[in-house]
Amino acid sequence: MHLVEIVEGCKPSPIRQGRHLLRRLIRRTSKKTGLPPGALVHVGERKVETAKVTIFDYHEDHLEQREATSIDECIPFKETPNVTWINISGIHDVQALQTLGDCYGIHPLVLEDILNTEQRPKMEDFGDYVFIVLKMLYLERETSEIRAEQISIILGVNFVISFQETDKDVFKSIRDRIRNARGRIRRRGCDYLAYALLDAVVDSYFIILETIGGRLEDIEDEIIQEPTAEILQIVYQIKRELIFLRKSVWPLREVLAALARQESDLIKQETVAYLRDVYDHTIQVADTNESFRDLVSGMHDTYLSSVSNRMNEVMKVLTIFATIFIPLTFIAGIYGMNFEWMPELAWHWSYPALWGVILVVGISMLLYFRSKRWL
Amino acid sequence: MHLVEIVEGCKPSPIRQGRHLLRRLIRRTSKKTGLPPGALVHVGERKVETAKVTIFDYHEDHLEQREATSIDECIPFKETPNVTWINISGIHDVQALQTLGDCYGIHPLVLEDILNTEQRPKMEDFGDYVFIVLKMLYLERETSEIRAEQISIILGVNFVISFQETDKDVFKSIRDRIRNARGRIRRRGCDYLAYALLDAVVDSYFIILETIGGRLEDIEDEIIQEPTAEILQIVYQIKRELIFLRKSVWPLREVLAALARQESDLIKQETVAYLRDVYDHTIQVADTNESFRDLVSGMHDTYLSSVSNRMNEVMKVLTIFATIFIPLTFIAGIYGMNFEWMPELAWHWSYPALWGVILVVGISMLLYFRSKRWL
Amino acid sequence: MHLVEIVEGCKPSPIRQGRHLLRRLIRRTSKKTGLPPGALVHVGERKVETAKVTIFDYHEDHLEQREATSIDECIPFKETPNVTWINISGIHDVQALQTLGDCYGIHPLVLEDILNTEQRPKMEDFGDYVFIVLKMLYLERETSEIRAEQISIILGVNFVISFQETDKDVFKSIRDRIRNARGRIRRRGCDYLAYALLDAVVDSYFIILETIGGRLEDIEDEIIQEPTAEILQIVYQIKRELIFLRKSVWPLREVLAALARQESDLIKQETVAYLRDVYDHTIQVADTNESFRDLVSGMHDTYLSSVSNRMNEVMKVLTIFATIFIPLTFIAGIYGMNFEWMPELAWHWSYPALWGVILVVGISMLLYFRSKRWL
Amino acid sequence: MHLVEIVEGCKPSPIRQGRHLLRRLIRRTSKKTGLPPGALVHVGERKVETAKVTIFDYHEDHLEQREATSIDECIPFKETPNVTWINISGIHDVQALQTLGDCYGIHPLVLEDILNTEQRPKMEDFGDYVFIVLKMLYLERETSEIRAEQISIILGVNFVISFQETDKDVFKSIRDRIRNARGRIRRRGCDYLAYALLDAVVDSYFIILETIGGRLEDIEDEIIQEPTAEILQIVYQIKRELIFLRKSVWPLREVLAALARQESDLIKQETVAYLRDVYDHTIQVADTNESFRDLVSGMHDTYLSSVSNRMNEVMKVLTIFATIFIPLTFIAGIYGMNFEWMPELAWHWSYPALWGVILVVGISMLLYFRSKRWL
Amino acid sequence: MHLVEIVEGCKPSPIRQGRHLLRRLIRRTSKKTGLPPGALVHVGERKVETAKVTIFDYHEDHLEQREATSIDECIPFKETPNVTWINISGIHDVQALQTLGDCYGIHPLVLEDILNTEQRPKMEDFGDYVFIVLKMLYLERETSEIRAEQISIILGVNFVISFQETDKDVFKSIRDRIRNARGRIRRRGCDYLAYALLDAVVDSYFIILETIGGRLEDIEDEIIQEPTAEILQIVYQIKRELIFLRKSVWPLREVLAALARQESDLIKQETVAYLRDVYDHTIQVADTNESFRDLVSGMHDTYLSSVSNRMNEVMKVLTIFATIFIPLTFIAGIYGMNFEWMPELAWHWSYPALWGVILVVGISMLLYFRSKRWL
Repeated sequence: MHLVEIVEGCKPSPIRQGRHLLRRLIRRTSKKTGLPPGALVHVGERKVETAKVTIFDYHEDHLEQREATSIDECIPFKETPNVTWINISGIHDVQALQTLGDCYGIHPLVLEDILNTEQRPKMEDFGDYVFIVLKMLYLERETSEIRAEQISIILGVNFVISFQETDKDVFKSIRDRIRNARGRIRRRGCDYLAYALLDAVVDSYFIILETIGGRLEDIEDEIIQEPTAEILQIVYQIKRELIFLRKSVWPLREVLAALARQESDLIKQETVAYLRDVYDHTIQVADTNESFRDLVSGMHDTYLSSVSNRMNEVMKVLTIFATIFIPLTFIAGIYGMNFEWMPELAWHWSYPALWGVILVVGISMLLYFRSKRWL
Repeated sequence: MHLVEIVEGCKPSPIRQGRHLLRRLIRRTSKKTGLPPGALVHVGERKVETAKVTIFDYHEDHLEQREATSIDECIPFKETPNVTWINISGIHDVQALQTLGDCYGIHPLVLEDILNTEQRPKMEDFGDYVFIVLKMLYLERETSEIRAEQISIILGVNFVISFQETDKDVFKSIRDRIRNARGRIRRRGCDYLAYALLDAVVDSYFIILETIGGRLEDIEDEIIQEPTAEILQIVYQIKRELIFLRKSVWPLREVLAALARQESDLIKQETVAYLRDVYDHTIQVADTNESFRDLVSGMHDTYLSSVSNRMNEVMKVLTIFATIFIPLTFIAGIYGMNFEWMPELAWHWSYPALWGVILVVGISMLLYFRSKRWL
Repeated sequence: MHLVEIVEGCKPSPIRQGRHLLRRLIRRTSKKTGLPPGALVHVGERKVETAKVTIFDYHEDHLEQREATSIDECIPFKETPNVTWINISGIHDVQALQTLGDCYGIHPLVLEDILNTEQRPKMEDFGDYVFIVLKMLYLERETSEIRAEQISIILGVNFVISFQETDKDVFKSIRDRIRNARGRIRRRGCDYLAYALLDAVVDSYFIILETIGGRLEDIEDEIIQEPTAEILQIVYQIKRELIFLRKSVWPLREVLAALARQESDLIKQETVAYLRDVYDHTIQVADTNESFRDLVSGMHDTYLSSVSNRMNEVMKVLTIFATIFIPLTFIAGIYGMNFEWMPELAWHWSYPALWGVILVVGISMLLYFRSKRWL
Repeated sequence: MHLVEIVEGCKPSPIRQGRHLLRRLIRRTSKKTGLPPGALVHVGERKVETAKVTIFDYHEDHLEQREATSIDECIPFKETPNVTWINISGIHDVQALQTLGDCYGIHPLVLEDILNTEQRPKMEDFGDYVFIVLKMLYLERETSEIRAEQISIILGVNFVISFQETDKDVFKSIRDRIRNARGRIRRRGCDYLAYALLDAVVDSYFIILETIGGRLEDIEDEIIQEPTAEILQIVYQIKRELIFLRKSVWPLREVLAALARQESDLIKQETVAYLRDVYDHTIQVADTNESFRDLVSGMHDTYLSSVSNRMNEVMKVLTIFATIFIPLTFIAGIYGMNFEWMPELAWHWSYPALWGVILVVGISMLLYFRSKRWL
Repeated sequence: MHLVEIVEGCKPSPIRQGRHLLRRLIRRTSKKTGLPPGALVHVGERKVETAKVTIFDYHEDHLEQREATSIDECIPFKETPNVTWINISGIHDVQALQTLGDCYGIHPLVLEDILNTEQRPKMEDFGDYVFIVLKMLYLERETSEIRAEQISIILGVNFVISFQETDKDVFKSIRDRIRNARGRIRRRGCDYLAYALLDAVVDSYFIILETIGGRLEDIEDEIIQEPTAEILQIVYQIKRELIFLRKSVWPLREVLAALARQESDLIKQETVAYLRDVYDHTIQVADTNESFRDLVSGMHDTYLSSVSNRMNEVMKVLTIFATIFIPLTFIAGIYGMNFEWMPELAWHWSYPALWGVILVVGISMLLYFRSKRWL
């Protein structure tokens, strides 16, 4: 996700990606500063043109589904005893949100949090409803980049409202299960639906981990065989992605632990086992993330020792050449001198003898280096 | 802030800035040592000429505001049932503080803490009132330097007293909201006002993070492309700023958590959601700060491996030149010798043949280096 | 285990082994995403052809054992008041598992967890039964590689069901003890049997530690005497194995602590001492693992300083040769010049004198290096 | 303090100072091993010739002060209802301590702890009295070295007994306040006096921090501009001092927290605010200490990168010279050969042309280096 | 201890010592795997030929001591109301232990733990008795090596049984105190005796720390003045010893904290102060251990920067020589060329002028290096 928001189709450089992480980490700020709390301002970029509202109203034997054109269509469903699931894709329509909030009695601060897409994952119990924020991470198919969007879930007695930033169909499998009455979902209540949404989000983290893991595998060979500055930049990039993932996962652990402890009365006993299951998955993601961090820091060490080995090798080549030829050049220099009285110059076997000396010196140097294991 | 207090308009060097951090971290000392506790001495530098006292007295339908010329003007407001907000900019006037303290029944140690501008953020519940200390961080517009001032807040049953070191109008937006009866502020009590003050302070941290983030972005490219000792100094400088920011934020987390837990009876139930909100913001600041620390330490690693790569490159250039030309120079040296019997010297094709040998040696060396990927 | 699943008999390279760790750490994902919770899908590789079901039904004076050909043979044992131990090797038969689950009233999520071999060790109390997941680690005898398989244990009032991925006879010693009525096992209940299974698993960790310790010993000498990139890769490999082992052991600590605290009513008081004992063993494994991590990181430091020492040595050899011969070559060069007026050239003793100079310069350089302790 | 006990007036070398730290950290041992617990043996060096006993007995309107010549003079004060403060400078007189202990009913282990000057700061509540041990740190004026002495405080219902190792007048300001009835001290009880003593000790830490901070400032410039091994030794020395300071401060935090929680009944409610205040100061010291540790470790990084930069610079100079002149020398060597058929030698413009070639090669090398930013 | 078990009198090399640590850390394994729990097997090496049993039976006015030849002699003392202290040196006699265990009602797992000398320090309360395991560390006088043995203590209502691996007289001082009725030991009960044993063990740690401290002092000078690979190996060796010591001390802290909290009813109120005292000592040992670890890691840093400084120095010497003589050799090479038309060769003052040029170049290079502070 921190690699995102780049014009699609162009592969971003690691450096530019780094910038996006920075921008992400600090973006909340300026729009809100100085405003009264509860003032509804959409913080974040507008990711879809028009908000899409999907309504499911079901119990075991009944299902009504509707693509609403206006938020007002949601209001009558409030009174039904069935499970009502309102999914809103696109959260920039402040007015609609206000309407919905008034209808379902949502606290202004919750609406503010939904609009502010820089929330930390958290769970807040307001008695009548539970407010959950978390981060969906998924892969942009064309560019195989990682993207994030904020998912907000409001779980009430007989309704679940979920908010997405984009119109990605991340909850498709759940919709299918409701339509086809597959699994337990139609027989269970709102809390099970909320669990299913949470489970879908956590599942997305495994795909991210698989992708990062694949990239780590590709890098690993390369970093040993040819350590370049570029490969190191990619390692740093992955390290940042793991930092980012960790930021999403760690608070989510606490959220799910709180839900599994039934901190809200809206969670029924029979749903606890499921919540504990998704909690286990989150721990597994967090564990794998930590293992990846260990691997990445090990790669950094590998890189450093590879570079250091290479420099050592360069030094050895230099030293071998220099220490063999410098003395030989000196000897040649001696007999290039123009002294009038240099008796060796006149001897007939001097020149062949000199070659002999040169060979002896050279070979003994080579043997010396071999004894030092430099060759 | 630890970059502050330098004559305005002159850009401080990183080294000098480091010194200011040091001075900040240890400044408390000498003035107070040996004095009895509760003795009122202003520790810190005097940042404004004259203290400015602003009084707001309001309830939903009523507003009285006044710029007091003397601290005594505050006293009558103590009896009003309205919310009374006294804001004092400039805390060096020990006498005035004493008067105010006597009137509102403030413990001498609290007054001492207000005067000592080196406090750690904290919250203390004295039953009748709650004392909160925290740090405002903001940008000096002209020099884009970061500055800090200590904000002390005393929250009573029907009054809030806030103390600033300077006369910066950091609470302007709150004043406007009170004047215009915007938002909920006029309908709520003292605890909501205190919350609004805390929120304004925490908002300032986001601006600081945005600034530091911007500087990190600028540095990141540079550190890969041209790692200099200066850029590293700036990285260390930012690292120190993050240490400093952390010192302000971490204790503030605990303060806000305690307030949100309603540890004091002065916090009403309906304000808790707001305090939890500002608590969330503080955690977000702390998280981002930690992420920045990770990024900065990653930059240090990048720097080191850049330097190491460059040294490796220098070594390669040296080695390539030396290993090509040293043997060639040796060959030239051989035929510069003056032996009488050197048959090669007389052969006609010796000289062109020698050039051939030179080319063969040189080119095979180059191929060898290419095979080692040094070229 | 993360070294596993390689075609037997071929020694894997460190790099390929690293990949297996990666694959292990991320394998859970794709098969499950999008399925409703509780859907039974076998995640992991199929390690045996046909599942093997072994049934033991015993009390102090009675023992019935059977190799079942179908899972249905287990059903009648449900009613016996004896301890019934059903061990299932090979968990890919989803249908059989479903049958067993229906018979013994196992929650669908538990069955799902048994099938998913990427579980984190955990313990869950469902009132009627306790579900325990942990990892068996053992040595592949032929290749002396480390392998892992997931062991799931369901402890009920009068039955224990254990699931293995392979048909390795890891519980052979327990079977022998039951058959021969050795030790206390026949006189105690289901909880003691579950303890015995846990103890057998934890015992396997000690063998792993012994193996890793042996490899560390072998490496230690080598890394000081001849630090190569290969040896460092092996060190990193061991480091990863320790990361992996840690992932198995740390959650197991919590599992055993919970059991020893009698968090489930199925644990009888007289078994607590035994569980505390195996808990102590787990702590010992965790401690040794941490000590090994310290040793491994110490080896990395040793490697780096060895490499750095060697480079220093290479530099010294280069410097000694260069600084001795470069000045001498210069002197020889001087008297190789062809100036017409160079009076020294004509002197009779010039040449011997020059040799004297050369010897003096050379020897004084050597003495200088000796004084610097470079020789 | 760990720099201490060196003959005064001679500046110790960093290495020798390091030794003193070692000696300090391990000194407790030998004298005591094998003795029964409670055996009174003075462990540590004898810092004063004769113990000095000062007695203050006061309430709001009354003050009696006395320099006792014998410990027996303290006994009658036990009965007075006033606050009795007995300060004993010099703790080697085991016999006197025994007498005092018997009179005031002090547990033998407490007396043993007082005599053993290697205690860790701690607080123990014995019901009738509270025993507090902490470390005074101060500056030796002549040599500006840091010294430590152990302060033991026994707080009873109507008495406070304090023990110092030396006769430094560290509590002078408190004595003055009592004499002059300044502040609250005369109006308050024993717990306030104990607080005042604690406050005086903690104040001394700020002076130490200021001194260390000053030394850090001095070092910081130097380490960037001229990184020498000596400056690094000083950095390590400061690092050790901070380790030592930390050892004094961290346990003191717990001591003060326990006192502020009124864990002993001897602490009255109105003193709690003061104890909380000194607790805040201790946290401030601990925070600053941690910040200094960060700074020091940053300095170490600065040093390493400075050294690495310098080596890089040396390498560049070598490479520039070698790569320019080695090819040129080769060219000169070519035309120093004595082949009979070398047509260039006879051409008239060969020599000037060769100079041209030399200039072209040299300048193009320089341009190449400039393009690589080595110049 | 991890340096131990080497043939006495031969000084082990650091590498071999490292191996012993490894063997220690992993030794538990093979003998036990597959055996039923509670099976009594002696794990560890047999350190004495025959077990020695010493019995003390005392109260304030009575003392009976005996060197038992058979374990059966202990049995009658079980009934005496006095404090009975049975000390058993040498634990390989499984049969005798079984007898004793049956007599005093010791749980089989406790006996197993006593026989397994690889226990982690721990305390277990079995109601009737408390079982404590800890490690004695001491100096082998002849070789000044550090050794460890496991001490197991069983504290009952009227008996204390202690087990040693060797017949070292580590509790001699306690025996003397009992014999001579020195101190409180004869007047107190079993818990005080257990405390005295614990205290004797913890005292031994201080001696170890003193020894390690002494070795650190010796190393410190050397590592600055002449950093060799050997000295670094010794530093790593000490680091490992500290890891080992830490493994003994940290769990002991918890053991003593639990005893001092009176978690067992066998601990009387009046012994708590003593246990708190020995707990304080353990914390002191742990603190010093941590400080030593800091020092050792500082030494590693010192070593690295020393090596790096030396390499820098080598580089400078090389660069100075090369950059001075390479240009000079080039100049000499120029006038060694054999061009027919080289007018300088014929000039009379060419040769002296050339010497002038050489001197100017050489001296200006030297001045340049001095300006760069390389000289």
